[in-house]
Amino acid sequence: MESHELARPTTAQLATASVDLDRHRRCGFPEVIFGQGKTIEQLREVVGALVANGEDVLATRIDTEQAAGLATTFRRGRYNATARTFRVSQPNPNRPSTTAWVAVISAGTSDLSVAEEARETLDWMGVRVTMIHDVGVAGPHRLPARLAEFADADAVVVVAGMEGALPSIVGGYVACPVIGVPTSVGYGANFGGVAALLSMLNSCAANVAVVNIDAGFKAAYLAGLIATRKHQPS
Amino acid sequence: MESHELARPTTAQLATASVDLDRHRRCGFPEVIFGQGKTIEQLREVVGALVANGEDVLATRIDTEQAAGLATTFRRGRYNATARTFRVSQPNPNRPSTTAWVAVISAGTSDLSVAEEARETLDWMGVRVTMIHDVGVAGPHRLPARLAEFADADAVVVVAGMEGALPSIVGGYVACPVIGVPTSVGYGANFGGVAALLSMLNSCAANVAVVNIDAGFKAAYLAGLIATRKHQPS
Amino acid sequence: MESHELARPTTAQLATASVDLDRHRRCGFPEVIFGQGKTIEQLREVVGALVANGEDVLATRIDTEQAAGLATTFRRGRYNATARTFRVSQPNPNRPSTTAWVAVISAGTSDLSVAEEARETLDWMGVRVTMIHDVGVAGPHRLPARLAEFADADAVVVVAGMEGALPSIVGGYVACPVIGVPTSVGYGANFGGVAALLSMLNSCAANVAVVNIDAGFKAAYLAGLIATRKHQPS
Amino acid sequence: MESHELARPTTAQLATASVDLDRHRRCGFPEVIFGQGKTIEQLREVVGALVANGEDVLATRIDTEQAAGLATTFRRGRYNATARTFRVSQPNPNRPSTTAWVAVISAGTSDLSVAEEARETLDWMGVRVTMIHDVGVAGPHRLPARLAEFADADAVVVVAGMEGALPSIVGGYVACPVIGVPTSVGYGANFGGVAALLSMLNSCAANVAVVNIDAGFKAAYLAGLIATRKHQPS
Amino acid sequence: MESHELARPTTAQLATASVDLDRHRRCGFPEVIFGQGKTIEQLREVVGALVANGEDVLATRIDTEQAAGLATTFRRGRYNATARTFRVSQPNPNRPSTTAWVAVISAGTSDLSVAEEARETLDWMGVRVTMIHDVGVAGPHRLPARLAEFADADAVVVVAGMEGALPSIVGGYVACPVIGVPTSVGYGANFGGVAALLSMLNSCAANVAVVNIDAGFKAAYLAGLIATRKHQPS
Amino acid sequence: MESHELARPTTAQLATASVDLDRHRRCGFPEVIFGQGKTIEQLREVVGALVANGEDVLATRIDTEQAAGLATTFRRGRYNATARTFRVSQPNPNRPSTTAWVAVISAGTSDLSVAEEARETLDWMGVRVTMIHDVGVAGPHRLPARLAEFADADAVVVVAGMEGALPSIVGGYVACPVIGVPTSVGYGANFGGVAALLSMLNSCAANVAVVNIDAGFKAAYLAGLIATRKHQPS
Amino acid sequence: MESHELARPTTAQLATASVDLDRHRRCGFPEVIFGQGKTIEQLREVVGALVANGEDVLATRIDTEQAAGLATTFRRGRYNATARTFRVSQPNPNRPSTTAWVAVISAGTSDLSVAEEARETLDWMGVRVTMIHDVGVAGPHRLPARLAEFADADAVVVVAGMEGALPSIVGGYVACPVIGVPTSVGYGANFGGVAALLSMLNSCAANVAVVNIDAGFKAAYLAGLIATRKHQPS
Amino acid sequence: MESHELARPTTAQLATASVDLDRHRRCGFPEVIFGQGKTIEQLREVVGALVANGEDVLATRIDTEQAAGLATTFRRGRYNATARTFRVSQPNPNRPSTTAWVAVISAGTSDLSVAEEARETLDWMGVRVTMIHDVGVAGPHRLPARLAEFADADAVVVVAGMEGALPSIVGGYVACPVIGVPTSVGYGANFGGVAALLSMLNSCAANVAVVNIDAGFKAAYLAGLIATRKHQPS
Repeated sequence: MESHELARPTTAQLATASVDLDRHRRCGFPEVIFGQGKTIEQLREVVGALVANGEDVLATRIDTEQAAGLATTFRRGRYNATARTFRVSQPNPNRPSTTAWVAVISAGTSDLSVAEEARETLDWMGVRVTMIHDVGVAGPHRLPARLAEFADADAVVVVAGMEGALPSIVGGYVACPVIGVPTSVGYGANFGGVAALLSMLNSCAANVAVVNIDAGFKAAYLAGLIATRKHQPS
Repeated sequence: MESHELARPTTAQLATASVDLDRHRRCGFPEVIFGQGKTIEQLREVVGALVANGEDVLATRIDTEQAAGLATTFRRGRYNATARTFRVSQPNPNRPSTTAWVAVISAGTSDLSVAEEARETLDWMGVRVTMIHDVGVAGPHRLPARLAEFADADAVVVVAGMEGALPSIVGGYVACPVIGVPTSVGYGANFGGVAALLSMLNSCAANVAVVNIDAGFKAAYLAGLIATRKHQPS
Repeated sequence: MESHELARPTTAQLATASVDLDRHRRCGFPEVIFGQGKTIEQLREVVGALVANGEDVLATRIDTEQAAGLATTFRRGRYNATARTFRVSQPNPNRPSTTAWVAVISAGTSDLSVAEEARETLDWMGVRVTMIHDVGVAGPHRLPARLAEFADADAVVVVAGMEGALPSIVGGYVACPVIGVPTSVGYGANFGGVAALLSMLNSCAANVAVVNIDAGFKAAYLAGLIATRKHQPS
Repeated sequence: MESHELARPTTAQLATASVDLDRHRRCGFPEVIFGQGKTIEQLREVVGALVANGEDVLATRIDTEQAAGLATTFRRGRYNATARTFRVSQPNPNRPSTTAWVAVISAGTSDLSVAEEARETLDWMGVRVTMIHDVGVAGPHRLPARLAEFADADAVVVVAGMEGALPSIVGGYVACPVIGVPTSVGYGANFGGVAALLSMLNSCAANVAVVNIDAGFKAAYLAGLIATRKHQPS
Repeated sequence: MESHELARPTTAQLATASVDLDRHRRCGFPEVIFGQGKTIEQLREVVGALVANGEDVLATRIDTEQAAGLATTFRRGRYNATARTFRVSQPNPNRPSTTAWVAVISAGTSDLSVAEEARETLDWMGVRVTMIHDVGVAGPHRLPARLAEFADADAVVVVAGMEGALPSIVGGYVACPVIGVPTSVGYGANFGGVAALLSMLNSCAANVAVVNIDAGFKAAYLAGLIATRKHQPS
Repeated sequence: MESHELARPTTAQLATASVDLDRHRRCGFPEVIFGQGKTIEQLREVVGALVANGEDVLATRIDTEQAAGLATTFRRGRYNATARTFRVSQPNPNRPSTTAWVAVISAGTSDLSVAEEARETLDWMGVRVTMIHDVGVAGPHRLPARLAEFADADAVVVVAGMEGALPSIVGGYVACPVIGVPTSVGYGANFGGVAALLSMLNSCAANVAVVNIDAGFKAAYLAGLIATRKHQPS
Repeated sequence: MESHELARPTTAQLATASVDLDRHRRCGFPEVIFGQGKTIEQLREVVGALVANGEDVLATRIDTEQAAGLATTFRRGRYNATARTFRVSQPNPNRPSTTAWVAVISAGTSDLSVAEEARETLDWMGVRVTMIHDVGVAGPHRLPARLAEFADADAVVVVAGMEGALPSIVGGYVACPVIGVPTSVGYGANFGGVAALLSMLNSCAANVAVVNIDAGFKAAYLAGLIATRKHQPS
Repeated sequence: MESHELARPTTAQLATASVDLDRHRRCGFPEVIFGQGKTIEQLREVVGALVANGEDVLATRIDTEQAAGLATTFRRGRYNATARTFRVSQPNPNRPSTTAWVAVISAGTSDLSVAEEARETLDWMGVRVTMIHDVGVAGPHRLPARLAEFADADAVVVVAGMEGALPSIVGGYVACPVIGVPTSVGYGANFGGVAALLSMLNSCAANVAVVNIDAGFKAAYLAGLIATRKHQPS
């Protein structure tokens, strides 16, 4: 099967980065840029290489200063300050319209930033998103009251800090895969999200997988992958 | 108020222990024996001193070997192998009958040992107990289905391992104080109960306090204290 | 028993939050707002919804900037900068006057902020508070000298950083439940309050339960619950 | 949509357990039994309740003693000592035959036990499995040499101990979701699987989610869910 | 000052050990043998070399099997099974009789083994010892009741597990140096003595230093050093 | 012995602090003020109470802002910015001149701040100090070259960050007690001083005790106590 | 350069393992077998494949039961119970005789097992070894006294438990690379070797690298690689 | 052999530092200055002492403020802001030109700072460096594509954050020693580099040693030592 050979993908070799220009063909989506720790100059180079290649660009963990620097170069770019994402969309996206559907459920108002990063990611993937906010476990009536809004989604992303119990509860209500994102929201023995992370890893619900603390992008990417592949012709 | 002076309580000075014989009068309940790490001879001495003082005796963390050693000396003693408790009850208990009521709710079958330690403790305190087993969060319909059995208790003890989410949920359903007991049930990133402990400490329910991992006795003692004092004349 | 059915409580569905307007009836006290990580706009919405519902409002973890933002909208609001609480009291509180009594004992001067958060919470609950400051264990004569001031309280909140030993000592002197609050006061191997937290969790006093590091609100809420329920008609 | 109401599922209320008999209808697969910490008597009750309900039974974390106890009651049961699973299959399984396909890739010979638990789980779900052993990263030629065997699977489970790097590499070669299972294989600063767990949580591959240490069942359940739902009519 | 030159001390070079035969002259006491992990043959060699040099021998962490092996060779040896120490005393000890005095105070009965190791060490150093058992902080009247027995000691060793609060209290009562020994007695969030260790390191009493968990020997050696040097002519 | 009774010491009851005015008589030295987390007003009150009682005042962990605030009130006060100490000395100190002698040895230039806090403390106690800087273990010739300067001290304080090995080496060269102070100097897997702390707790030198990370005051207080008591008439 | 192409090395595909038969040519030494967690049958297969390929075999972490199982099949095999290694040497080794020289220095008698694993590994590599035992830092005269025995080695392996300070000291005396091996020897706050590991990672000596806890093989392999390559024609 | 005697090296005794002026002769390279936590005055003294001794100076962890302070004194000095190094080179370096060769490979753009510190160190040692950037494991084709650029180096430094898997992969491709440097690049469960550190310590590649998090200097020093000594006449 020829697609499995070690074909050398086309790579843009920049000063301090190599950009994988073949990823869209190979994996279904282009490379995503992780902005944290990169200079504005480095970001410009990588965004530019992807734009030149005709890709829809998604950059995450972009602070306001980086965003301002990028905006002067990429006028069509759109910055979401809550999600800390910067996107440059192509006029005629080569994404097929899909019926893929993911729900993003968050426990508290303070988890909004991570939930928004997930929403932007899913939107970039062309996936329909349902957002459900502030249904944490301390008010146990809130989640079942809204079950009809997410029960038939293809996958669910659950964002929760503090004790991180929400993915287990959601996992008990739905049949689809659930991706839990622990957030660093909390204080004291929360240890920057460790409490929620351990809680989710030990979930007694069988359909819950976990990603890194505050990793809204990764959870959404996985959920989006599950959803879009479900609707591809087998 | 003379009861606050530093009255020296009657103490039985044994070879390697001092037994507080005045505690019942001062605190409402006699001293409880923590069996772990004690020799049979040391246990016999302490149990004997309390029995001689006319107290109902409760010893916790008693393994089968210690229990056998105690049983030869204290014929009226009763050992609960699941709870790992050894009790010697006096013929005419000086406990007043109370209407105090505590519910003990456990998440999984494997939490039974800790829940039983709680039950024995409450029984020793003269408190009525309702036991509710195996209502962990992965089956989210199980707890609300049994709400009527515990909603009006004076206090609730919630025993849970793995992600330890159950106290938060219970805390959302009831108005009374909830004492969470994390258990060491689980594996991997459970770290011997740390995951459940952190989860409970970070509970977003305002009425949840926590005790040490596997501390069924302490949770029950606190819940029993809250319940019995509630029914005392103010 | 009809109060146990899954009655859907009245919920105010705001942009990024759901406010539980039924909580006062269900749990005895209205919802409390955790301010950390919320924008001023989000806070205004939630405080406004509760005020409109006729509730006495308590918001915790409010920094000076948030407080200034709230003060422009809620003129009757009162900010306690040490406690970091913002409260809006109704002209005619629907709280019955009670005889409930809680003592708040703190180990050192640096624990004052957490002790004040506890005091504000108890005051909001209508509970009488006795404050006892700076009686840490290094000066062992200080606590017994003041025993008469707290020995007959319905519950005691003990606030301590560093080695966190005070709850155990207090627990040895009183018969009532003790809620320990570890604080992040200290340095080095204190690890932001972990030393005090572990100390309290391992307390050899049977009547000590624990809440999260710096969780003055939660400790006070639990102690206040124990105290007010003790004085309710059974 | 009526399927979202809070229908009370049929539950078998046993002495110390509640068995969810409705789960197959609700979630697509019946409840799975976690054997660790359960007595043989408790296991017999739960297995019996599921068998009586006509379900294919999967019990995990069954040691040889528990297996022997179950085998005397359930003659048709099959024990896999490497996987530590006990299964009772029904004569006429109600599982539709599917074309769902999952690859299970393990890094070293010592990870075999966890990989086998995954294989048994997928087989119980009716999913086709490809097993690829001992392709850890220290021999970097081994994995690409076998790419054709797994590149088109619906999902991949990657089992790895020690530095836990394999999921990242696999994630770079495939387009489908990858579920990483850290194992406790290793010594010293491995800390019982923590090194591999952290490695996988920090994976720079966007398509890698993680489950608990040694959680072969959960990884397989998630991968199997992704694969079977992909082949269901949308 | 010639005593400071790098004089090569006389060393017995054994198969797998070098024994420092000059230590008594240099440091005031001969080398002490740490038994854990050594074979009986290795122990015999080292004990033999010290005995041949005319030293009083102290070996710590000697289990019963090692003790039996040593006893067959060194008939005058004495094994203390609680302390896990093996000692061989010379007929005419070259220790001057001193008036040095150390108190060893322990919190609970389970701390006895560590306290006994301390007692044996001090006896080997020729220091007078006062043992005070079971005066943990949960019974706050017990310690002050016995103050007269230890208040004038040259140094105090305090042995405590669980919350490890006792050294702080003792430190508040006495003017002399206090050496805290955390023990591994406890369970759950005790983490094998870590809770007590952190508690002691964070002691707010200025006169408390700490040694390793269960390090009864080292605490006693330090206290004995402080005491004997205090009574030496300056 | 009348000095052991529970005499209530004279205490100055301030707004948020109780100052122990009897401590000098009881323990040999007056109370020391821990400045971290205290407001300037609180500091002024406590310093004032001690000055009024005729004590030499030592306040530690005083930042430059606190120091400026104190300096306006206490003109005779002296601030050491490296040590972060503020002292107010009485014209005619009631400290007897002693021959007590302590060496303070530090591993690297970056440990200077902690070493200076120790020096100020010893000076306040009236103890002679020898300072030896920058003799860390990576240059193994440096320490023995200076042995004559500290070998006959009454006690040694050793200040070291990074791997914290210096106390063990010093402990091997001297016969007196050694107090190790781990510092937070380092980076990466130093974890804010934990590496050095663990190193010192595990020291194979029998004469090494440990205090908290960066606790220059406490180490000096203990060493000063050992030294001054050694030179008191027994 | 053709040696860099992705040539597929000859691999023996066994039931549960792939053995890299090309490694000797590629890396200079054949594959080494990590025995822990492998069954005797699995070990026999892998050892057999290597022997059949004409390699000198080294298997590490072999317990006595595994060794007995291997010995029945491989009669020429030699088991070192202290090192836990099993070796099968070929009659005519294809190793060139070299002048490579490595010193293995250990801190205490209890570190012998790890030091022996290092010695066996170096011997298998054809490297000359100098063993120096029991020169830990508490006896600071011992190491410099033996400097001439190791100062000119090509590399040094230093094995130490407890505070793990020895590599820093050795690093200060020699100019060559030093590989530190922390061991799990110790107790309490040693945490199974973590104290020594952190100590070595934070070493202030610039020429010290570190391997995993108890990883005698890996340290020796690295040191042997450095030494043999130093003596190869450039 | 006279070079092994304890010759006292020439030391410059400054106010708060001792500078080892003999190190170049003894170890092959002069002392390197660790700038973190040093004042500009302290840095000037040490740099000055080395320059006066005719050494090429390398100072690491120099922030921009320190660099500015040094630049006014040492006009020939060169500051690399990315590497945070300050160097003063002598006009006629006494370094022999060597053929030593080290490759520095980094996983991501954000690891550049640490990689640059390594490059500056190797340049200071007179070693030829090959830099390879951004070849992290998520793009598995990138590393083998560049194998020819580093396969024959004398040693390889691998710099990686996040999951830290790259050293294992590199170790599988090359025969020479590999020094892994974990970086603090990442977020969440990365814990400031701990995830990468543990990953590298548990590497299943036998030729990988590890240094502290972000320790680019130390890794380069070790690799440079291995490389230069390889090319020295034996």
